[in-house]
Amino acid sequence: MERVEHHACFDGWQDVYQHESAVLGCTMKFGIYLPPQAQQRKVPVLYWLSGLTCTEQNFITKAAVQRYASEHGIIVVAPDTSPRGEGVADDPAYDLGQGAGFYVNATQTPWAAHYRMYDYVVQELPDMVETHFPANGDRGISGHSMGGHGALVVALRNPDRYRSVSAFSPIFAPTQGPWGQKAFEAYLGTDRETWKHYDTVDLIRAAKERVPLLVDQGLNDEFLETQLRPELLRNACDEANHPLTLNLRAGYDRSYYFIARFMGEHIAHHASALKG
Amino acid sequence: MERVEHHACFDGWQDVYQHESAVLGCTMKFGIYLPPQAQQRKVPVLYWLSGLTCTEQNFITKAAVQRYASEHGIIVVAPDTSPRGEGVADDPAYDLGQGAGFYVNATQTPWAAHYRMYDYVVQELPDMVETHFPANGDRGISGHSMGGHGALVVALRNPDRYRSVSAFSPIFAPTQGPWGQKAFEAYLGTDRETWKHYDTVDLIRAAKERVPLLVDQGLNDEFLETQLRPELLRNACDEANHPLTLNLRAGYDRSYYFIARFMGEHIAHHASALKG
Repeated sequence: MERVEHHACFDGWQDVYQHESAVLGCTMKFGIYLPPQAQQRKVPVLYWLSGLTCTEQNFITKAAVQRYASEHGIIVVAPDTSPRGEGVADDPAYDLGQGAGFYVNATQTPWAAHYRMYDYVVQELPDMVETHFPANGDRGISGHSMGGHGALVVALRNPDRYRSVSAFSPIFAPTQGPWGQKAFEAYLGTDRETWKHYDTVDLIRAAKERVPLLVDQGLNDEFLETQLRPELLRNACDEANHPLTLNLRAGYDRSYYFIARFMGEHIAHHASALKG
Repeated sequence: MERVEHHACFDGWQDVYQHESAVLGCTMKFGIYLPPQAQQRKVPVLYWLSGLTCTEQNFITKAAVQRYASEHGIIVVAPDTSPRGEGVADDPAYDLGQGAGFYVNATQTPWAAHYRMYDYVVQELPDMVETHFPANGDRGISGHSMGGHGALVVALRNPDRYRSVSAFSPIFAPTQGPWGQKAFEAYLGTDRETWKHYDTVDLIRAAKERVPLLVDQGLNDEFLETQLRPELLRNACDEANHPLTLNLRAGYDRSYYFIARFMGEHIAHHASALKG
């Protein structure tokens, strides 16, 4: 593991590391914010999963998270959104291949060789973070769009591993929208039963533990009606009696300006659960 | 003038506009944050000048300024750093030509045709902002590195037009460092007397009004010794009895992580002067 960036920020450090991922079979980068409290003791970790086209840079440069993470004493880890490199399969479209891993374990050719972002996020990355940094083992997870989907899926499938979850503009029902259908068919094949392991709405119906969900959604999001459809999440939670705070934000779009506006509230939500 | 971006942010709007600049003879973009207070009344404007290689995007996406501007009710305008376009002279180096206007009015071939960033920032841009937006005519100015130099020069030369000034990692003494010497020789020619109109240290010596300066400088800045040399600013202010708050920040570099950390304090400084 090699540190490739190191910047003082809000009395802690915003770093970027590079490492060889055994799960993904390639070199990966992740951003990590180490708050000042982590110089004295072990602290909780919030994982952030970014959206389509993003690298580890988008969130750490644009979301204004460091102030809140410093106040609450939380490490924030932001991995890249897919395996990367010349030997890794890719597609010219922005919504498939590199930059678009969808946080699944691919089973189909040519993707299966490297595209195992689910295992990377759930196991390899936390193992590494908890080995090398002052992390106390308490984990939260959040993300945006494709990464909001990833965060919800990871938390719903691993309620023993995550104490808190939230999402911005998540793709809650990928099996019912064009982005998810395209990606899942490529990565998982045409058997739609296998897709259900990666669909928040399906997972809520089957969930045994009721991890409370915090979701923020801008009402000026250009993909609101075609890709996101928050009523599907609302209905699934109502039917399953699953706790949901769904904030519909008038005027807001899906940019990092939206994320930065409500980041403080999400960090406070995670901090409350992680300290509880 | 055409609006090309429009994002809700902290109950106001982060917009980007494009317009034909008569002073620069090309199409220019600028970012403008309109706080919620500007929907009810006219408010002060803070101008932000960015550093080498930046466009209007760097500051508005990375500095986390919107929260503070929203709290204090200040419009924040961030122009591009040079004229742009195919007909505009350029140089392959990052520190000359497009992205490196140095906030001067060039007198030398081939730069004189378009490179008039001083007049653009001092006159054309504020005239346009005050015509088209709810600005009350009170102005502050700030910036980073090359833009910190620009902010200090603009305020020191126009104390009647600006009520407050601050800078992050500014090039205070461009006539004594490699960046400034290269740019000034290209844009202004070899007569060093003409350079003094754009050198903060020289302007402090000659200033008739004593506009207080707020400067933040990271002590891990890689250019501290070669390009910046804050002792030159300290000495000039001491000799001229010019009010200076010079914050030397241990551990901090010159990135936007540094700027974001201290942005709240700079906005509070400007808000205090602009409301006073």
